[in-house]
Amino acid sequence: MNTYGTLFRVSIYGESHGKAIGVLIDGIPAGIKLDIDLIKHDLDLRRPGGMGTTPRIERDEFSILSGYFNGYTTGTPLHVMIENTNTKSEDYEQLKKHPRPGHADFVAEVKYKGYQDYRGGGHFSGRLTAAIVIAGAIAKQIIPFHISSKIIQLGSETNPSKFDQLIETLQQEKDSIGGIIEVKATSMVVGLGEPFFHKLDAEIAKIMFSIPAVKGVEIGDGFHGVHLRGSEFNDALSDASGKTTTNHSGGISGGISNGNDLVIKVMMKPASSIGKPQQTYDFNQHEVKELEVKGRHDSVIIKRAGIVLESALAISLADFYLISKAYQ
Amino acid sequence: MNTYGTLFRVSIYGESHGKAIGVLIDGIPAGIKLDIDLIKHDLDLRRPGGMGTTPRIERDEFSILSGYFNGYTTGTPLHVMIENTNTKSEDYEQLKKHPRPGHADFVAEVKYKGYQDYRGGGHFSGRLTAAIVIAGAIAKQIIPFHISSKIIQLGSETNPSKFDQLIETLQQEKDSIGGIIEVKATSMVVGLGEPFFHKLDAEIAKIMFSIPAVKGVEIGDGFHGVHLRGSEFNDALSDASGKTTTNHSGGISGGISNGNDLVIKVMMKPASSIGKPQQTYDFNQHEVKELEVKGRHDSVIIKRAGIVLESALAISLADFYLISKAYQ
Amino acid sequence: MNTYGTLFRVSIYGESHGKAIGVLIDGIPAGIKLDIDLIKHDLDLRRPGGMGTTPRIERDEFSILSGYFNGYTTGTPLHVMIENTNTKSEDYEQLKKHPRPGHADFVAEVKYKGYQDYRGGGHFSGRLTAAIVIAGAIAKQIIPFHISSKIIQLGSETNPSKFDQLIETLQQEKDSIGGIIEVKATSMVVGLGEPFFHKLDAEIAKIMFSIPAVKGVEIGDGFHGVHLRGSEFNDALSDASGKTTTNHSGGISGGISNGNDLVIKVMMKPASSIGKPQQTYDFNQHEVKELEVKGRHDSVIIKRAGIVLESALAISLADFYLISKAYQ
Amino acid sequence: MNTYGTLFRVSIYGESHGKAIGVLIDGIPAGIKLDIDLIKHDLDLRRPGGMGTTPRIERDEFSILSGYFNGYTTGTPLHVMIENTNTKSEDYEQLKKHPRPGHADFVAEVKYKGYQDYRGGGHFSGRLTAAIVIAGAIAKQIIPFHISSKIIQLGSETNPSKFDQLIETLQQEKDSIGGIIEVKATSMVVGLGEPFFHKLDAEIAKIMFSIPAVKGVEIGDGFHGVHLRGSEFNDALSDASGKTTTNHSGGISGGISNGNDLVIKVMMKPASSIGKPQQTYDFNQHEVKELEVKGRHDSVIIKRAGIVLESALAISLADFYLISKAYQ
Repeated sequence: MNTYGTLFRVSIYGESHGKAIGVLIDGIPAGIKLDIDLIKHDLDLRRPGGMGTTPRIERDEFSILSGYFNGYTTGTPLHVMIENTNTKSEDYEQLKKHPRPGHADFVAEVKYKGYQDYRGGGHFSGRLTAAIVIAGAIAKQIIPFHISSKIIQLGSETNPSKFDQLIETLQQEKDSIGGIIEVKATSMVVGLGEPFFHKLDAEIAKIMFSIPAVKGVEIGDGFHGVHLRGSEFNDALSDASGKTTTNHSGGISGGISNGNDLVIKVMMKPASSIGKPQQTYDFNQHEVKELEVKGRHDSVIIKRAGIVLESALAISLADFYLISKAYQ
Repeated sequence: MNTYGTLFRVSIYGESHGKAIGVLIDGIPAGIKLDIDLIKHDLDLRRPGGMGTTPRIERDEFSILSGYFNGYTTGTPLHVMIENTNTKSEDYEQLKKHPRPGHADFVAEVKYKGYQDYRGGGHFSGRLTAAIVIAGAIAKQIIPFHISSKIIQLGSETNPSKFDQLIETLQQEKDSIGGIIEVKATSMVVGLGEPFFHKLDAEIAKIMFSIPAVKGVEIGDGFHGVHLRGSEFNDALSDASGKTTTNHSGGISGGISNGNDLVIKVMMKPASSIGKPQQTYDFNQHEVKELEVKGRHDSVIIKRAGIVLESALAISLADFYLISKAYQ
Repeated sequence: MNTYGTLFRVSIYGESHGKAIGVLIDGIPAGIKLDIDLIKHDLDLRRPGGMGTTPRIERDEFSILSGYFNGYTTGTPLHVMIENTNTKSEDYEQLKKHPRPGHADFVAEVKYKGYQDYRGGGHFSGRLTAAIVIAGAIAKQIIPFHISSKIIQLGSETNPSKFDQLIETLQQEKDSIGGIIEVKATSMVVGLGEPFFHKLDAEIAKIMFSIPAVKGVEIGDGFHGVHLRGSEFNDALSDASGKTTTNHSGGISGGISNGNDLVIKVMMKPASSIGKPQQTYDFNQHEVKELEVKGRHDSVIIKRAGIVLESALAISLADFYLISKAYQ
Repeated sequence: MNTYGTLFRVSIYGESHGKAIGVLIDGIPAGIKLDIDLIKHDLDLRRPGGMGTTPRIERDEFSILSGYFNGYTTGTPLHVMIENTNTKSEDYEQLKKHPRPGHADFVAEVKYKGYQDYRGGGHFSGRLTAAIVIAGAIAKQIIPFHISSKIIQLGSETNPSKFDQLIETLQQEKDSIGGIIEVKATSMVVGLGEPFFHKLDAEIAKIMFSIPAVKGVEIGDGFHGVHLRGSEFNDALSDASGKTTTNHSGGISGGISNGNDLVIKVMMKPASSIGKPQQTYDFNQHEVKELEVKGRHDSVIIKRAGIVLESALAISLADFYLISKAYQ
């Protein structure tokens, strides 16, 4: 179930403090000359180090262990692994019994009956998004579409020039904030997606919600479209190619790409790990107790998330693109 | 691909003006005494007839053709069919060449190379949501959770007592409006969902976006949560059962149900079919021409959508519930 | 789970004495001009009436209820239904408590906790193979390969000219016999199949074993190949197209079609329903009792099975063929 | 597609001469105390070294890189890797243009357009069965059934005491031979399997054919059952538990386990790699030329295959077992 896709299939494994994390990609066409620098570039975008994120650490070093030969994909399952290093685990056992609010600590304890690797969030760690980024960077090399992203809101702030100011305040308060990222795909074609369930927007929403911290996804105008009448919202065709004069529907009609730009907005909640003390139930003490999450935290983890969402979109589009070729 | 689910599997077929629509449900446990009245009740909620919807028509008459014996499910695939009656098709051929804005007419023409059944939206018709409602009414009889929904916004209006006024205006203007529906599941358990891709929120978002006209899905606070700091957004555990003092995360942590109420908000765009004339490309005339969509239209189709979204949620939860039983 | 395929997806429903049986086909390309006569022709081949089969009954009348418009497939799910008529059910209740040897009566009772439709074998009835034949006849219209079948052994008899003699004996003895059918696909291409699990032979074996009464499947020489040395079994390439001088491997190497004829042999056990009395456990009497299965029986049901196996092969090949197009 | 299973999902990757091979197992229950010695024991059974196999090499050293914590499975994807060592690749490039008869060399070249890792068979190498064995050894720890296997025929020889004699001859002749293995599962339950497509026998046949060199699979009497009449083949129930006096059907009725022992026979063709020179097409010389496959070969590779087939059966049964729990 920890697999996405019908033909281009991405499976993820690993835990934050385990030996390695990685991604297995099946259904990748043979003969793709992999641009390794692009994978590195995308991983670097996800790396901490900017203002409001934890201090810069070393680059994620990955190895391609299968499905890759003489610089090209072979067409058989491609496995990319990142070994975990520098994983200090001493502090985590207490979190098992005093779960962090907003984290998956508690649900993991119940679902996995106490057997989960609880260190650093284990399998729920944001670290696994590095695997998504690797798969996404490879997916981008299969599809003819162009994908980009930008933060359009940070907390209540929509003016990018004021983001740094907000971040400074948050760091002082040992708190965090969420935001909204717009992800786009341009140079689209008409016809990706199926009319029910396997709709393009349905699958995009699914993979976006698969990224930790995502709590809302909208296509085109999304929730803002509630203020428009049908006569305003309806995108009128302006020519035979399917271009529309407006793009309220964000490039998808009836679950199928209509050739206009895909426009997706994604809300990410504030990072759950904050330095500020919180009151939450302690399973050892059987009462609500103060919890202070140790370590350095991302106050605006969303600054690292754009590339992850882009990657998720690329993975989904690669799958739809391959499927569409079967029907040409 | 027009199938949803891993164990509880729902497949939909049919076209608006074809011979029948229906749903095939596989993976349903044996021995469920089906409450046929509940299916009828839910179908009635979806039926037009209220203010702002097209005039009341006859009840959808369905037949259970397999998987049902002596009043109980047999455990083998259950097929429910609704035969289409009163389908006047004369007016639709023009829409093939003069596609309606906001509809799937154009993408269907391209994707299916002109072979689609274009009458009344064909397979893209909202009529197929009757099949979803049937499957949902059956799903509800498998799960121990309680599902409900309500319209919380109509256009810009959030005060339900003023909805009728707005609807009247719209009908006069031959226009339509969208809205926001809140769908809830209560009496939840901890542990539904997988950590990646097959997350509970990811699958809920997927099935919600599978419903025609949905353009946004949020869990818990969703986009509104952007204004909260981590210290405010984080839901603190108040007792050993996993109950939290707040529910900003809408009952899902790390993609897994945390035992609190599931709270999902869904934005539906205004109905595309409006009486008001629209300017859009005409493939016969090779220019933008005025289009007037004939017939009677729903100006606030969202009034019929709550039960559809409830049904979608029930289908998804039934699948997760069965999977969870495999790991107990 | 009662669905086969990745892109070309076939789902089957129905019970022998229920209202209808049918098949839902998803992933069928748009614009296939369906040859309805071919469907009828193939269904007729499956119809009883020949020597050693039950007396001729009326033709299976099917309706295409969706996914078909103006003579062509629309690209959306295609549903074909056969209504059941003349289903006398009076005699079946006793079989629930005195299950027929060789039938699924007992396992159905346990698996479905007594809720199964037990009349005429219910969902396990060979009648559902009519749905396979319909799907297969449609699949044949998608693939460029030619499929055929023949009975190569009936009981211990391998000389077709002596089959009738054997059948006569069986009918006198109120007994039945199995046989071996060879199914072939010619005009094959190189490259269908994946190296693990989704191998061409693995999927063919899966769909063949999905047909009731099949107890053995072999590719190429199969079990007879046990007598050959590697130097004899290895098929040597004779030219650049991949043609081999011998075809011991039956057209599949490493799970992937090699361009030579696909050769599959399928063993079908004797029909379980025989007139001859049998001793088997009676759950009412709590002891082994004699059972005499009433009605008219096929003593050589395999005479009707060739077209079913052909259809199964066509379904599988249609799926592989569409997938292969995604990677061209 | 290189994934098997619905809930217990096994994905395999790697190439014979690549950096590593491995297996990703998803859907494994949390809290299984893994018996690492069993995994080693099963891998050892697959290791060469006996008479008629290539000389003993070092043990396959595996690492569990995720999904495993403090000696127990965590419930999240479990990844096991074997790094490849001692992989001499110098001799393989010629095989790309002079493909070995009976191998996948030619189909890989066409399917993957020349981009495949051709060294040592690449992804098609029997080496990947080590990954199957690991997954199988873990699967065995989930299921309550007991699995065993034995070689019942080697070439034309059915007397085990004469196997060594045959092997000696083969080694002198630099040739190979196939055989038949019987795989059994005992302590079975009633009810595993679905009535169509996802039948127990259909899935077992699928996973057996996924093992390299398998060319035939039969359940119970299989092809030998062709000589029996229905009155002989039908297994009569002898008591209320479902035990039958005979087991011609090999423990499966209507695609569903009937509680009796599962009996599966699998034919494996002779190893393709033989020392004896063979005539086959040379794509460089554009003519049929003699090929002598260098290196040491298994003349009776089937001696190492029993544990692989057992593992395959265990994987399939683990999946069915988990699914059955969802419906209890």
